[in-house]
Amino acid sequence: MRIRVINPNTTEAMTTSIAAAAESVAWPGTSVTTVNPSMGPVSIESHYDEALSVPGILTEIRRAESEGTAGYVLACFGDPGLDAARELATGPVLGIAEAAMHMASHLGRGFSVVTTLERTVGRAWDLAERYGMSRFCRGVHGCDIAVLELDQNPSTKDILTERCRRAAHDDDSEVIVLGCAGMAGLCRDISREIGLPVIDGVAAAVNLVQSLVSMGLRKSGRGEFAAPLIKPYAGLLDSFGSLPTG
Amino acid sequence: MRIRVINPNTTEAMTTSIAAAAESVAWPGTSVTTVNPSMGPVSIESHYDEALSVPGILTEIRRAESEGTAGYVLACFGDPGLDAARELATGPVLGIAEAAMHMASHLGRGFSVVTTLERTVGRAWDLAERYGMSRFCRGVHGCDIAVLELDQNPSTKDILTERCRRAAHDDDSEVIVLGCAGMAGLCRDISREIGLPVIDGVAAAVNLVQSLVSMGLRKSGRGEFAAPLIKPYAGLLDSFGSLPTG
Amino acid sequence: MRIRVINPNTTEAMTTSIAAAAESVAWPGTSVTTVNPSMGPVSIESHYDEALSVPGILTEIRRAESEGTAGYVLACFGDPGLDAARELATGPVLGIAEAAMHMASHLGRGFSVVTTLERTVGRAWDLAERYGMSRFCRGVHGCDIAVLELDQNPSTKDILTERCRRAAHDDDSEVIVLGCAGMAGLCRDISREIGLPVIDGVAAAVNLVQSLVSMGLRKSGRGEFAAPLIKPYAGLLDSFGSLPTG
Amino acid sequence: MRIRVINPNTTEAMTTSIAAAAESVAWPGTSVTTVNPSMGPVSIESHYDEALSVPGILTEIRRAESEGTAGYVLACFGDPGLDAARELATGPVLGIAEAAMHMASHLGRGFSVVTTLERTVGRAWDLAERYGMSRFCRGVHGCDIAVLELDQNPSTKDILTERCRRAAHDDDSEVIVLGCAGMAGLCRDISREIGLPVIDGVAAAVNLVQSLVSMGLRKSGRGEFAAPLIKPYAGLLDSFGSLPTG
Amino acid sequence: MRIRVINPNTTEAMTTSIAAAAESVAWPGTSVTTVNPSMGPVSIESHYDEALSVPGILTEIRRAESEGTAGYVLACFGDPGLDAARELATGPVLGIAEAAMHMASHLGRGFSVVTTLERTVGRAWDLAERYGMSRFCRGVHGCDIAVLELDQNPSTKDILTERCRRAAHDDDSEVIVLGCAGMAGLCRDISREIGLPVIDGVAAAVNLVQSLVSMGLRKSGRGEFAAPLIKPYAGLLDSFGSLPTG
Amino acid sequence: MRIRVINPNTTEAMTTSIAAAAESVAWPGTSVTTVNPSMGPVSIESHYDEALSVPGILTEIRRAESEGTAGYVLACFGDPGLDAARELATGPVLGIAEAAMHMASHLGRGFSVVTTLERTVGRAWDLAERYGMSRFCRGVHGCDIAVLELDQNPSTKDILTERCRRAAHDDDSEVIVLGCAGMAGLCRDISREIGLPVIDGVAAAVNLVQSLVSMGLRKSGRGEFAAPLIKPYAGLLDSFGSLPTG
Repeated sequence: MRIRVINPNTTEAMTTSIAAAAESVAWPGTSVTTVNPSMGPVSIESHYDEALSVPGILTEIRRAESEGTAGYVLACFGDPGLDAARELATGPVLGIAEAAMHMASHLGRGFSVVTTLERTVGRAWDLAERYGMSRFCRGVHGCDIAVLELDQNPSTKDILTERCRRAAHDDDSEVIVLGCAGMAGLCRDISREIGLPVIDGVAAAVNLVQSLVSMGLRKSGRGEFAAPLIKPYAGLLDSFGSLPTG
Repeated sequence: MRIRVINPNTTEAMTTSIAAAAESVAWPGTSVTTVNPSMGPVSIESHYDEALSVPGILTEIRRAESEGTAGYVLACFGDPGLDAARELATGPVLGIAEAAMHMASHLGRGFSVVTTLERTVGRAWDLAERYGMSRFCRGVHGCDIAVLELDQNPSTKDILTERCRRAAHDDDSEVIVLGCAGMAGLCRDISREIGLPVIDGVAAAVNLVQSLVSMGLRKSGRGEFAAPLIKPYAGLLDSFGSLPTG
Repeated sequence: MRIRVINPNTTEAMTTSIAAAAESVAWPGTSVTTVNPSMGPVSIESHYDEALSVPGILTEIRRAESEGTAGYVLACFGDPGLDAARELATGPVLGIAEAAMHMASHLGRGFSVVTTLERTVGRAWDLAERYGMSRFCRGVHGCDIAVLELDQNPSTKDILTERCRRAAHDDDSEVIVLGCAGMAGLCRDISREIGLPVIDGVAAAVNLVQSLVSMGLRKSGRGEFAAPLIKPYAGLLDSFGSLPTG
Repeated sequence: MRIRVINPNTTEAMTTSIAAAAESVAWPGTSVTTVNPSMGPVSIESHYDEALSVPGILTEIRRAESEGTAGYVLACFGDPGLDAARELATGPVLGIAEAAMHMASHLGRGFSVVTTLERTVGRAWDLAERYGMSRFCRGVHGCDIAVLELDQNPSTKDILTERCRRAAHDDDSEVIVLGCAGMAGLCRDISREIGLPVIDGVAAAVNLVQSLVSMGLRKSGRGEFAAPLIKPYAGLLDSFGSLPTG
Repeated sequence: MRIRVINPNTTEAMTTSIAAAAESVAWPGTSVTTVNPSMGPVSIESHYDEALSVPGILTEIRRAESEGTAGYVLACFGDPGLDAARELATGPVLGIAEAAMHMASHLGRGFSVVTTLERTVGRAWDLAERYGMSRFCRGVHGCDIAVLELDQNPSTKDILTERCRRAAHDDDSEVIVLGCAGMAGLCRDISREIGLPVIDGVAAAVNLVQSLVSMGLRKSGRGEFAAPLIKPYAGLLDSFGSLPTG
Repeated sequence: MRIRVINPNTTEAMTTSIAAAAESVAWPGTSVTTVNPSMGPVSIESHYDEALSVPGILTEIRRAESEGTAGYVLACFGDPGLDAARELATGPVLGIAEAAMHMASHLGRGFSVVTTLERTVGRAWDLAERYGMSRFCRGVHGCDIAVLELDQNPSTKDILTERCRRAAHDDDSEVIVLGCAGMAGLCRDISREIGLPVIDGVAAAVNLVQSLVSMGLRKSGRGEFAAPLIKPYAGLLDSFGSLPTG
């Protein structure tokens, strides 16, 4: 089983750390490859960044399809381009917010999301609603650390731990969801510190994709997520006017 | 990793077929044991049956806890006793309706449930709402075959296949969820016939529980699902007045 | 008109005080009998307790049906076993949370629930949603007094009064719902103290059942709440495999 | 206990038949008086009619308050002026749509409303949502008989019975709510014909008001429904610029 | 294009200031006339006042229809009588709460409403829900200034500015909606002070009505908002028993 | 006032016809310019097309910002890139689905959307929910004509008219929303044929943007839609790593 994890930003150091989280939950016999696009933003912290990460994501899926990939993980908590990715892929595609929120709903009555910048809070709520998870989502909280600062700031772990503890208390929630792929490595430490389940979306999504593939389940080819129609594309994006032939 | 699958009714033939579905998705190193209680209804087709299956389920969880079980699957599509089971267990507990509905939401915009008797349709809708899945659930349909008749009626597979095909068409849905643990064995055949993803909740739940356990995640011990308080129980149920000491 | 009020726990002192509240609103010509099962928990403070109170409740309904009972009240604020009880009964069955929440919605824009232990708060919210009352429910608050401590703790009335007053203020609500059958006796005193309508679910439910019966209305025999199918039951619960013949 | 039932239109024949339905459920010791305003439309079949029935309703409440009335029923299925009436009254005020829908929710999973003209269907849905009953309301259906034609058309009973039967079937509902005060007299006959509970809002509301009053519960005087401020009123409506002094 | 703005209360000074706000956004070629009824309350601060303003509003619409008016604005934040007004008018009718809330939803993720008396807060929430705007409405806040005091109290502007600033902060909202037609003149000043978009419903509604009319769009004549049926009206309101013949 | 209308696909003939619809509602003194990006798909009929139209849209907004544009219309019924566009723009940005749905909600109780290909139906529902308009949206219907075929197929007008008529009947709706910018020219003819209001989103959005700008309202600069942070962008999209300096 070949799984492709896509870090939607173009920062390779982050791809490396996402790869570690992803591979740590690979099943025997699964090959998990983590990549990032060659075009797009170095980090995703706005709707603007998110929208502009999608052409790169789709390029990676086109390539992976032609290589016979069984399933995909989009490793940014905004789950950018998920609908378009589902159209393009034949196997299942999971976003990490999607995976983390669903898993959290199995472990308690409510969860809190702790993410990076305050301005991304609205996007997390939009996703919770889209996935049917808003009834479980008790709060979404920024911690005022930029994405690329996460692994540079020596206080990241302390700040995050404290923010998670406070979120659980203020929201009266029982589970924590980490709201950025760059936080994956801190998951178990924070959980131990605060005594609550803490969920990293990368591991959650890799497990879900493997589960779906192992059950023989693929993205439904009927209706909304059927492969997109082939048509001409103009200018800088003209290469998107044909589909992969996996 | 030791996983306990509980068939909430007392029909051993059904336990056997559930065990087959469950074991087919066990990971290397996972021991999956499927059991049924010694008390309760032979099949679950009403709120009455469902309520009376719960003492048996809880007895099995008490036993399994003392044996160091890592996680649980409740293998009846009504997900009976899920809240009480979560209080009692230390690891994750998944119902098969819960697991199947969540997985279906990753594969298309909407799913249809095909279940046994018409009178259980309301329960399926209640669960869809509880799990946040009602926005994905496009319809729930009985097929007028009683639970214990499923593996006796030579037409079961044809009737179910036809019902699934019609449900997808009428509901304009893209994924099918099979609404009874006794249908697990037919999952792949129906999928092949109708050309859509068809989900068996037993396999879905066993995969989800393994995923959660492998990530070090347990039921949250905080708040609503903390272990129940120890107190006296009277009469026939007096043995429930103490908790397992796993 | 014969009405049966069932205290779902096995503590007779509580049955006595519930009986007082129930009888105080009996209409001329109505015979209200209050009972408790002989099996089950001494108090209900968890999903576990609640689930295990249901066999006892159903036993009482089976007995009462054979005696020609016209309607039922389930006198625990978790409304345990309501769906199963409705299947079994021919007349109307009301839970006290159901009755109290509905009545509160007629008197103001929003109500607050004040209940016993914090861990039961989630259950109250679930019920509010199920009954369509979540738009009126502004808050649910524990007061940290265990059910059986209610009539023993000399400060119960003061603590409850203060909690109700604070809830109304914090939630900006206009009506109070008392969230435990054991609080019925304090209803009028608290109302006088805080100057707001305070609702006891036992009185509310007994009135609603009498109203329904007097209008010739019974549980609908069609669809989901039709009498359960007769089938074999195994083990400790084998007596449930037949239905009353009222 | 003095209860005032207000027929919001100015047709006295209808007041008489509403009075019969109301008095049939009066408890011993309750005095139920049914009146209609001297101003306003002869029947209510539009938002326009409804809005213009409210001054008459409020006039009747002002008069009744000064006479020491304990509670009120607004006997038109649009529940006109309910919020304003609640401000003005000291006791509980119930609309008949409110009462009927709530009662229906206790008897089955879903109800259908059968009303007069198709154009009032939207109003019934608005009310269902306002009361939290839209989750139980499976359909609202006109029967193309005008309000004042109900007791003149010799086919009314047959048409209504057929419409109720079809609504239950098409909506898959288990309870019928009659959507006009003028249908009260047909309630039991239709129920017998179709074998399902059929609810008349007048009887339902009179019972609910008596229940609330008997429990010592009045409209909450706090917040939104506190008595309106006294202020000058101009022109034709100048008499409304003072409040009753009950 | 002739637009009629109706101030639903009978205070002419307020009509004058509403007229100024309305005319400031009239397009070239549009004639905007602002009127108030001769009957009804001097200000609207309760459901009672609101209900009793509706006959006056409908009288004004009847007159304006016979004069060939193209569209209407109801200039009170409770949007009184909107449904009835729509039935009566042939052109579009907008309430100022409706217009302001819709416009606010285009400018940010969430808005706060700042209104006059606390007791009207519930009505604003009802309207937000009716218009589908509750997902954008983050809070509704009274400022404890009565409607007719707004242009008399020298501190009005300071109090309102401070209340708006605090609301945006507490609700984490990005846009302010002024919740009374009498606040229209302060809109731009408050916006400048607090650095956020602040919306006056009068200007918003006048623009929307002009937009609709210029696109050839009128109230739909089909179904619920078709012209009301002609029928007799009794007593004080007998003149309403005929419709305008524009 | 300078308004920029962006046709998100790269087909100039469509830009021309959108320009005609947009200019027909320009106010005196407003300059409306309609453009299309030089990169991207020739038509938008999938999530894939939509995602890949966004870089082109954002390029156009960057250019327009530097030219002092006051407001924007995104003229594709999927409202692609709306959130990102709002971040980038200083003035208001409206999508045509957003504008049309909002306007429809002022004219009747419910509307039906008639769009091009069936596979885009889900997107329209997503938008209805996002804008709070799902309570008004009664149905979304494809007509099986591809976007670029609309102005080539001689039967387009007849097919669309018939589809609109049927949609209104089947959905019991009172207003029609045309679900593609390429249908703008047919709006008035269809309305005349079927006797219902029919809304073209281009005209609706141009009017709304002019209204907002004329009221001095801009996109809120606080919170989620503040200008995106400047940061490096890699590869093909590197030019997006700086912001316009309007």
